[in-house]
Amino acid sequence: MKPKYKKIDEEKEENDDEDEESLILPASLTAKKSEDFPNWMSQILQLARIIDNRFAVKSMFVWMPYGYDMMLRIKNFWDIQFRKNGIKEMYFPLLVPMKYAQQNDTWWNGFKEQGFWAGQKDKTDFILRPTGEPVMYPMFSLWIRGASDLPLRIYETVFSYRYETKQTRPLIRDREIGPWYEIHTAHATKEDAEKEIELAKVMNDLIWDFIAVKPLMIKKPKWECFAGAEGALEYYTLMPNGRVLENGSLNNLGQAYAKKFNIKFRDHTGQEKYVWQTCTGNGERYLGATLAQHGDDFGLVVAPNIAPIQVLIIPIYNKENKEKIIDKARKIKNILHEFRVEIDEKEESIGSKFYNSELNGIPLRLELGEKELNQKTITAFFRNSRKKTAFKESDLVKEVDLSLKKIQLEMLQKSADELKAAVVEVKNMKDISKIASERKIAKIYWCEEADCYDKILKSNEGLELIGSDLKKAEESSCIACGRKTSNQAYVASSY
Amino acid sequence: MKPKYKKIDEEKEENDDEDEESLILPASLTAKKSEDFPNWMSQILQLARIIDNRFAVKSMFVWMPYGYDMMLRIKNFWDIQFRKNGIKEMYFPLLVPMKYAQQNDTWWNGFKEQGFWAGQKDKTDFILRPTGEPVMYPMFSLWIRGASDLPLRIYETVFSYRYETKQTRPLIRDREIGPWYEIHTAHATKEDAEKEIELAKVMNDLIWDFIAVKPLMIKKPKWECFAGAEGALEYYTLMPNGRVLENGSLNNLGQAYAKKFNIKFRDHTGQEKYVWQTCTGNGERYLGATLAQHGDDFGLVVAPNIAPIQVLIIPIYNKENKEKIIDKARKIKNILHEFRVEIDEKEESIGSKFYNSELNGIPLRLELGEKELNQKTITAFFRNSRKKTAFKESDLVKEVDLSLKKIQLEMLQKSADELKAAVVEVKNMKDISKIASERKIAKIYWCEEADCYDKILKSNEGLELIGSDLKKAEESSCIACGRKTSNQAYVASSY
Repeated sequence: MKPKYKKIDEEKEENDDEDEESLILPASLTAKKSEDFPNWMSQILQLARIIDNRFAVKSMFVWMPYGYDMMLRIKNFWDIQFRKNGIKEMYFPLLVPMKYAQQNDTWWNGFKEQGFWAGQKDKTDFILRPTGEPVMYPMFSLWIRGASDLPLRIYETVFSYRYETKQTRPLIRDREIGPWYEIHTAHATKEDAEKEIELAKVMNDLIWDFIAVKPLMIKKPKWECFAGAEGALEYYTLMPNGRVLENGSLNNLGQAYAKKFNIKFRDHTGQEKYVWQTCTGNGERYLGATLAQHGDDFGLVVAPNIAPIQVLIIPIYNKENKEKIIDKARKIKNILHEFRVEIDEKEESIGSKFYNSELNGIPLRLELGEKELNQKTITAFFRNSRKKTAFKESDLVKEVDLSLKKIQLEMLQKSADELKAAVVEVKNMKDISKIASERKIAKIYWCEEADCYDKILKSNEGLELIGSDLKKAEESSCIACGRKTSNQAYVASSY
Repeated sequence: MKPKYKKIDEEKEENDDEDEESLILPASLTAKKSEDFPNWMSQILQLARIIDNRFAVKSMFVWMPYGYDMMLRIKNFWDIQFRKNGIKEMYFPLLVPMKYAQQNDTWWNGFKEQGFWAGQKDKTDFILRPTGEPVMYPMFSLWIRGASDLPLRIYETVFSYRYETKQTRPLIRDREIGPWYEIHTAHATKEDAEKEIELAKVMNDLIWDFIAVKPLMIKKPKWECFAGAEGALEYYTLMPNGRVLENGSLNNLGQAYAKKFNIKFRDHTGQEKYVWQTCTGNGERYLGATLAQHGDDFGLVVAPNIAPIQVLIIPIYNKENKEKIIDKARKIKNILHEFRVEIDEKEESIGSKFYNSELNGIPLRLELGEKELNQKTITAFFRNSRKKTAFKESDLVKEVDLSLKKIQLEMLQKSADELKAAVVEVKNMKDISKIASERKIAKIYWCEEADCYDKILKSNEGLELIGSDLKKAEESSCIACGRKTSNQAYVASSY
């Protein structure tokens, strides 16, 4: 095992005896995203009613309808991908019997300190699932007998439980994590397991595009992979404060678990062999990433694909024309029935309605008053660019359709551009910390040796070498030892 | 509180120290449904891969893909109903802090013995949710301030946890129960709460039709309702052994919880008032009911609406015509793309394929061999009636569509007929037990007084007076005291 290096700030032990969270919500969005991202995120998640963090159990929160709807749209998209590719949905119980939790000591060492224990009042014989392996794999060993039982390709979407001791943050690090999918597969050969990982990459590409986020993908250093595994790929997303967030991993488990859980099959020659396994998973951090990346000082900017309300119609009226304008707004809502449209009919000022539509990140706002009625137009406000334009009423369906697609693409492009801008190639050791202090990610040449890994981290306290680029580069010199290498790696501060 | 009467057999305390469940699956369906329903149910749930009951935690099981798919189709249907009616989906944490669990003593008395406790290794400060009230209602009291916050109408679909001491049975009584929906609403007036219950009935009518089960609906005796509640309606479904299964309740909670959890609003006059609440819920027992009612000695009979595979094509070939027939089967699958169709291409005998298609309850089986090819027909086998017919190939889409609709309707009608046949009007006390012993439900006149309730149950050991018919009947005499009443009630053996 490699030594652990201290991470920058924030990662302090939590004090569980501290006062209960305040029961008062923030009154308005006062934190600026560029200046104080953690506070901005905390305020906006509550103000836009993504979650309610005032629940009485520390770092467990209530998913509000507006936020849960977004999360379920993401979940629905992954369900479609997985089913289309023949991965079957199942459900495994919440309780992990101690015997199975301890069956793989590498897993157990990673989770035993973070277990929520459960059972009858006076005997807590179980831990609540932190991950699925020890509930799933004992069943795998019952189900798999011969080659015809392979491949076994299943997933479940559940909430998982970890008693986190690091500082918790909603949608980023929670003690109740979910909804979280886990795909687990078993194969007859190593090659089949590798193909499964390739498929997982394809499906993930689609999911990231769906939520308009471009992640960084890396190959983990081999000593950071699960013991006995063949390797692990990992997604990281860029947070507005320049830190990176681990956001789903694709693990080629090799035969490490098969040997612990005795998952074997008889091949066509009658020989008993251990299966080859993969597992992948992710969940609420998808939503955390897209909300963190796209919001601004006015509030959220929600990608059209996941927006519970894609189009909000705000009627602008006075006493005289109220009926006429509301009536027209309802007609327009009907015309736009193929989109998720609502009319804001609340008894509130127009200013307040505009403020809230921006706070909540509604992708497209349609403003409809006397002027628009006379000109047979509708004023459209794009939340992402905050620009206004006029749609001809006769072209409305087409214009709205194109606008939502345009916003979705612009958001993805913005994410890709920001990631590209954040990565800076660095040729010498002392520049690594400088780049990180500028909220950027250092891309370095590294020979993949553990010695150099240690050297790089020791002289860059608080930073992490998260892993290697998947593409080999033109040959150059390792930043630590000068040896020739075509391997490039990323160094950043991570959550 | 009314005394508890002993129920017939089976409800013995479970011995938790008994041997682990056998790890061997039944080899084939040997139990007859009409002779030994519990054993039939246990065999068929495992053989048709609805669940796997070999999980290492007692009365927690694995949902297999075939079974979970059915359950999710039911869930999807209720999601659609709830959303269409403006009920918003949320998610509340799993852990109930002791403080809130104990806030309503009636609730706590009902669940404290059945709690799974949880927490850090040495301090179990929480119980896992047995129902949603104590996690939800502290939040309701934060959210509800004025009349404009009402009605509050939300639901969540989750797994819930009860340490059942009665005998457990998958899909009927489990320690991990789910997926289970709970709708919880809060209203400004009692009338609004009553309207919500009316809407719940409408939505439930649709859900029962969807799964092809006709339930009995009763009004609970007032002393069996939650303390302080206005009343409760309850669905019961008929099990093949004549017992009835409690299958979802519609609870008009009145202000009982509002007062315990301090859920108040200021009305337009500025006065503080407690809200009026309702809650309803159900889950896996929907699936339990439809599978229990419709199966037969050949296996499951799955309603087309919830069938993962609605149509199974079985190609019948020899070495010479194999390619031609498989090719044709694939063409037919494409033609039927709007249905859930699969081809059984396994290397198995036709007999075994037929056996499995019936065991798994596939609604419609299409048989395709040389004869069919020559005649331009397809042989169709209806699982529910076990009758065969020939479809003209040119009419196939229309015939399959009509057949699936017909099967769905026939199954619902069968359920309604069986329920009707099971209910027998009984005029004198000693016939009640006789009717129950014939696997039927006694319908009696009862004056609604507690004295008579006691008398009826005392002389019919093991039976329950589950509640009253919603419709008032023509006046007659109470079976116990002879007083005039137009209230009819049901007496049966219940799960």
